[in-house]
Amino acid sequence: MDETIAAVATAYGEGGIGIIRISGEKSLEILDKVFLPIKKKSKKQNNKEGIFLPESVGMAIGESIVNRRLTYGNIIDPLTNQMIDEVLTVYMKAPYTYTTEDIVEIYCHGSIVSLRKILELVLRIGARLAEPGEFTKRAFLNGRLDLSQAEAVIDLIKAKSDKCFDVALGQLDGSLTKEITTIRNNLMDVLVNITVNLDYPDEDIEIITYENLINNLSQINDMIGKLIATADTGRIIKEGLQVAIIGKPNVGKSSLMNALLKESRAIVTEIPGTTRDTIVEDMTIRAIPVKLIDTAGIRETEDIVEKIGIEKSKESFNHADLIILILDGSKPLSEEDDHIIDIIGKRKVLVLINKIDVAQVIDEEDIQRRLANAIIIKTAIKEDIGIKEIEDEIESLVYNGEVKQSGNIFITNVRHKNLLTSAKSAIDDAIEMVDRREALEFIEIDVKRSWEFLGEIIGETVSESIIDEVFARFCLGK
Amino acid sequence: MDETIAAVATAYGEGGIGIIRISGEKSLEILDKVFLPIKKKSKKQNNKEGIFLPESVGMAIGESIVNRRLTYGNIIDPLTNQMIDEVLTVYMKAPYTYTTEDIVEIYCHGSIVSLRKILELVLRIGARLAEPGEFTKRAFLNGRLDLSQAEAVIDLIKAKSDKCFDVALGQLDGSLTKEITTIRNNLMDVLVNITVNLDYPDEDIEIITYENLINNLSQINDMIGKLIATADTGRIIKEGLQVAIIGKPNVGKSSLMNALLKESRAIVTEIPGTTRDTIVEDMTIRAIPVKLIDTAGIRETEDIVEKIGIEKSKESFNHADLIILILDGSKPLSEEDDHIIDIIGKRKVLVLINKIDVAQVIDEEDIQRRLANAIIIKTAIKEDIGIKEIEDEIESLVYNGEVKQSGNIFITNVRHKNLLTSAKSAIDDAIEMVDRREALEFIEIDVKRSWEFLGEIIGETVSESIIDEVFARFCLGK
Repeated sequence: MDETIAAVATAYGEGGIGIIRISGEKSLEILDKVFLPIKKKSKKQNNKEGIFLPESVGMAIGESIVNRRLTYGNIIDPLTNQMIDEVLTVYMKAPYTYTTEDIVEIYCHGSIVSLRKILELVLRIGARLAEPGEFTKRAFLNGRLDLSQAEAVIDLIKAKSDKCFDVALGQLDGSLTKEITTIRNNLMDVLVNITVNLDYPDEDIEIITYENLINNLSQINDMIGKLIATADTGRIIKEGLQVAIIGKPNVGKSSLMNALLKESRAIVTEIPGTTRDTIVEDMTIRAIPVKLIDTAGIRETEDIVEKIGIEKSKESFNHADLIILILDGSKPLSEEDDHIIDIIGKRKVLVLINKIDVAQVIDEEDIQRRLANAIIIKTAIKEDIGIKEIEDEIESLVYNGEVKQSGNIFITNVRHKNLLTSAKSAIDDAIEMVDRREALEFIEIDVKRSWEFLGEIIGETVSESIIDEVFARFCLGK
Repeated sequence: MDETIAAVATAYGEGGIGIIRISGEKSLEILDKVFLPIKKKSKKQNNKEGIFLPESVGMAIGESIVNRRLTYGNIIDPLTNQMIDEVLTVYMKAPYTYTTEDIVEIYCHGSIVSLRKILELVLRIGARLAEPGEFTKRAFLNGRLDLSQAEAVIDLIKAKSDKCFDVALGQLDGSLTKEITTIRNNLMDVLVNITVNLDYPDEDIEIITYENLINNLSQINDMIGKLIATADTGRIIKEGLQVAIIGKPNVGKSSLMNALLKESRAIVTEIPGTTRDTIVEDMTIRAIPVKLIDTAGIRETEDIVEKIGIEKSKESFNHADLIILILDGSKPLSEEDDHIIDIIGKRKVLVLINKIDVAQVIDEEDIQRRLANAIIIKTAIKEDIGIKEIEDEIESLVYNGEVKQSGNIFITNVRHKNLLTSAKSAIDDAIEMVDRREALEFIEIDVKRSWEFLGEIIGETVSESIIDEVFARFCLGK
């Protein structure tokens, strides 16, 4: 925390503007060493550009650098006196900054070369390259954000849909913190009551009856349970619904993908086996982020390149939330189809009987019998028949028939879900002991454990290694 | 120019910070409608965060928005009162800004969702989406940059190497402007002298002798010629040297690519025909940006996917600055090799006789005889033998035996090169007429034309359609 850190804060690539961010005690000193402000000339000195160039760097502090004021000038390498780029800079004084430390930001041309050169210079002058998430980590360690809020920052940045962004923004704003704090306060009330009863058994204080305990703990358990119940939808909101499209070559996989994408990014072709790579497309169906995976045809092949594609497609297939199986309805099931059906077994599957505009030869009942969790839709993908029904099924799958908008708190983070589950299970244990009328001392331990699990979510009771793990997920420069 | 424009100014993708830039008269008004500053509370109102939230947007102007001062707050949709993101904003008052107009910048989370939502809001409130390069176009039209400086901005951003960046930075700084202006001033002197001689033939003014004219015009021609001479190297500095690697399947193309890349991004495999797509790798060899194109094996094939690859490889082959032909030195020339050699003909080619660690069967003299412009290098690519020699040849090809660093003015822009060529050719015409002792009136016309061509480079004499064309090359948000 003593070190001053620096990193590129904008996305990688070419843009109008790029940002180098510096945080820590030496920020201003570093800026002073590399930045030469260009001041407006007095009227007397007026020239065409209305500016003049001081002779060397190192005269910024106290002269031109005003807290939070954007200042125009050049970045100059003090060793060679060479100009690196024309920039705007800002110095933000601690503690009202993102990290609560002194921060300097340099706004340069959004060129990869410029960003690299300025960063290299800043590192040479005395900063250390920031680790991914280190700026936000400092904001957490300095108490500006709790851990769940810090985690929301990276979810915000990586959000793939509006819903996902809004959920993360709510979390950053403290919605989850508030909920967790309420539950923990309730647990603390229970703990205080238990302690008082243990310490002053003779005093005239509200006596904990076991019934009372059961009531309170059950209520708390319900609150935790409701949060956990949002996790499935929460995961889909965050990561998207993984949908694998499967079927023998040339049955219409690419066409389905295109129909759903409504633009042709997967190559539609008549040559079986052309889709050599697993193709993943991120899209939004009814505001649900969906990862659509077009798998290579599962078939015996001698082509090594194609085999690699097939290995990948098996993997996507195994991890999918939903499988869409496309069958050619105009022909009887082939051996390949049979093979695919056997693989699917009891998994959730949307079976499309395609090419119904040509003919329907396939035995629907036979398929329903062999695939326990199949929903069958008749389609003619190229004619746009059945696409709406597919989207309907995907929507109802995600929301499980529940109301779509149940507020903006969704558990989108696996760490949070696991901790909530542990917290709930500790309460379950406590309730069971209450049922058995065991001693308050033992019950206290479980209630305390639950309180601590919940504290880990917001970072109040959390180890350093978990903190490191949380911030390792971040991108550079945040 | 009356309209207020807006665009995302950072590179597309996920980052710590994203920027929306707004320029024009309504910038501040738009900011006021969507931005709610969060102020530090007075001590009396102090709460945990030390901040309080005003009730609604529309109270920023005059209260919190200070010229050039970064202000913290929220972007709020005034229709729904929903918060969109937590941001920093800045208002930069005309005329000391990039466009010389009022500019507002919004620094939000570097999330694609946040950038899109804020941009949509700003556009709804009254801005128009900026065209690519429109901010810089306004800087040019408002006289802050000349045209060659404006063109340097996009070259800076797209620079693929340090050298390319430095050349563009010099150009932005006015190095080319200065050179062109000097030449134009010299031309103007000639023009003035001609005019004076035409208008006041009897006055006692320095009389233009034809010898004098020849001298002056020849000197100017030399200056222009020197600039044109930098264009070949300039193009390579900017675009990279296009090198196509060609050879029959499995002869070592991918291995060469890897050896030069020193990392394995092209798949090395033993299966002929595996490199299905033309693979282009940007790299730097001896500080020279190089575009290395690994071509699919040129051979007869029934595989349509592979054929597509081959079509592409023929195209790259036709546009390459240099061809590297790899032959298997351990075997006699095959029919395929013969075919490739015939295609190459008289083009510049580096012939690698590979696998010399195995054996050398190939007849070197025969190859030299059949390829007029071949330089032959014996290699064993997998053993790293001959790689240095390849890099030597590439370096000497680019710098043509000239001194590497001849200052930082290089003509990197085709438009500039064409205008210089036209300007020179006009002077050539003038000189020829002087030789024939033609009337000054005719000579004047050509000198004037030359002066105008040069003026187009810096945008002093340039049509609207050319301006549009120049800025169409820009990225969004600059």
